[in-house]
Amino acid sequence: VYVQVRNLGTKDEVDENVKKFRSGNYETIPDPQRLQHFKKSQENIPTTSKDETPPIGANALPHPIWSEEEVHNVEVTHKPPEGKVDKMAYYTVKLMRGSFDILSGFNRGERNERKWVLRICFLETVAGVPGMVAAMLRHLSSLRRMQRDYGWIHTLLEEAENERMHLMTALQLRKPTKIFRLGVVVSQGAFVTMFSLAYLISPRFCHRFVGYLEEEAVITYTKCVQDIHNGSMEHWKTQPAPESAITYWKLPDDAKMLDVILAIRADEAHHRVVNHTLASLKEDDYNPYKPGE
Amino acid sequence: VYVQVRNLGTKDEVDENVKKFRSGNYETIPDPQRLQHFKKSQENIPTTSKDETPPIGANALPHPIWSEEEVHNVEVTHKPPEGKVDKMAYYTVKLMRGSFDILSGFNRGERNERKWVLRICFLETVAGVPGMVAAMLRHLSSLRRMQRDYGWIHTLLEEAENERMHLMTALQLRKPTKIFRLGVVVSQGAFVTMFSLAYLISPRFCHRFVGYLEEEAVITYTKCVQDIHNGSMEHWKTQPAPESAITYWKLPDDAKMLDVILAIRADEAHHRVVNHTLASLKEDDYNPYKPGE
Ligand SMILES: [Fe+2]
Ligand SMILES: [Fe+2]
Ligand SMILES: [Fe+2]
Ligand SMILES: [Fe+2]
Repeated sequence: VYVQVRNLGTKDEVDENVKKFRSGNYETIPDPQRLQHFKKSQENIPTTSKDETPPIGANALPHPIWSEEEVHNVEVTHKPPEGKVDKMAYYTVKLMRGSFDILSGFNRGERNERKWVLRICFLETVAGVPGMVAAMLRHLSSLRRMQRDYGWIHTLLEEAENERMHLMTALQLRKPTKIFRLGVVVSQGAFVTMFSLAYLISPRFCHRFVGYLEEEAVITYTKCVQDIHNGSMEHWKTQPAPESAITYWKLPDDAKMLDVILAIRADEAHHRVVNHTLASLKEDDYNPYKPGE
Repeated sequence: VYVQVRNLGTKDEVDENVKKFRSGNYETIPDPQRLQHFKKSQENIPTTSKDETPPIGANALPHPIWSEEEVHNVEVTHKPPEGKVDKMAYYTVKLMRGSFDILSGFNRGERNERKWVLRICFLETVAGVPGMVAAMLRHLSSLRRMQRDYGWIHTLLEEAENERMHLMTALQLRKPTKIFRLGVVVSQGAFVTMFSLAYLISPRFCHRFVGYLEEEAVITYTKCVQDIHNGSMEHWKTQPAPESAITYWKLPDDAKMLDVILAIRADEAHHRVVNHTLASLKEDDYNPYKPGE
């Protein structure tokens, strides 16, 4: 407990330190690393060599852990657009999905593992952008306007990290090719620019846009679950889940890829309702989602 | 616990949903808000009217809580620059501080509460930028390169939020004028641009730069503590700390402004060692700081 004792270093001691510092007389001033104040925390620092690096997601933000019932109850849903802004968001998503499906040739021929993993990878590199950009812009806006944030930032950061975990999970199944990587870099440049500008103009549009994007994501992962149940992806019923996915989603030790896809789909359904909710709030309404909810 | 039972909605049910959705037949598809899956989490959502908005910092990330001993043991320190990049970072900070001191006229005449609060406000609107920008750029880089982050992002976000809490605390003492606000907006624009570009070129430079900025911050807050002990700010020895500061830094109920300034100074000393450490690591070294440390 914090006790009210005042024994601050005297003015003279502090002045002396400042003077030494100002005069460039560094030798006599302790290095931060060697200060008693930091010794304690330094001791807590784990020495991490390349071999003993903690697993992906070790420092993850709080996020919902889904029950068996919840992951199976996820449904394809749609929130009808209300007003012009919503409609613009809706048709932007439809246009993006339509052209992406054509360009990627996803629906031509059988959907195999290569196609699925690449599609998931690409979509998740994009999906990780909005939460982070929105969080940064709200943070900067709070600093700049010198007004409080209304509890939105943590939810946006949780979404961004969660999407990045989806990507990290997919990457453990297959490493993308050079050309694919180039496509990702170019898309990110364009999407970060567009989304940032759009968020400065209309946060409502942006959250509605993400809401509709997540409606599509739920459709995509539902199709994936179908392919696992009675299609070309049946081996994901028995293929073990990656270690980091088991830790992150708190799955049972013998969880399969199907469980991972179900958990990801539940995440997407969660982002869907969260973003549709945020889109309907005013920017200075308090965010109803607590950390990890 | 998660049990391995498979009772997913049948393929036909899912297909039906997707078809209804595609055909624009929205009426028959449940609104996300009314889905059973979300009912549960919806019930957890606190209804927040404008009057019962949670206090500033209610959703704060984990952050260090300082003991009485720790806040008093903070010292003015300096880490000598090693190599060209460090020296550039050092002289950039020196130049910035020098010109800021002259422009703000801080050392002309007596340092009163108005001057102190405005100085703190301004500096903290700037201090909140690097952590957020660095976190975003590492996040985007992880997505773009499709490689894991090495546990840095959470530490950078904690720093950004902590600096914003410093600002929110200072704002409870005095609301800045219009001209001051304009200065803040202009400075943020310039600083965000410069810092983002610099981080893309040399993260080492940027973390070293922040390390030196925090050395200055410790000097500034040490001067403030001096002014409270034997200067023009003696009333902060007895003036009660703002409510939100007591909650955020877990101070005793009767904490004074002096205690708040001491806690802030300890935060700055912490950012100092953290950033000097990160500057000395390679970008794919694992961050040794765990959440809240
Ligand atoms: Fe995702
Ligand atoms: Fe998503
Ligand atoms: Fe600060
Ligand atoms: Fe700081």
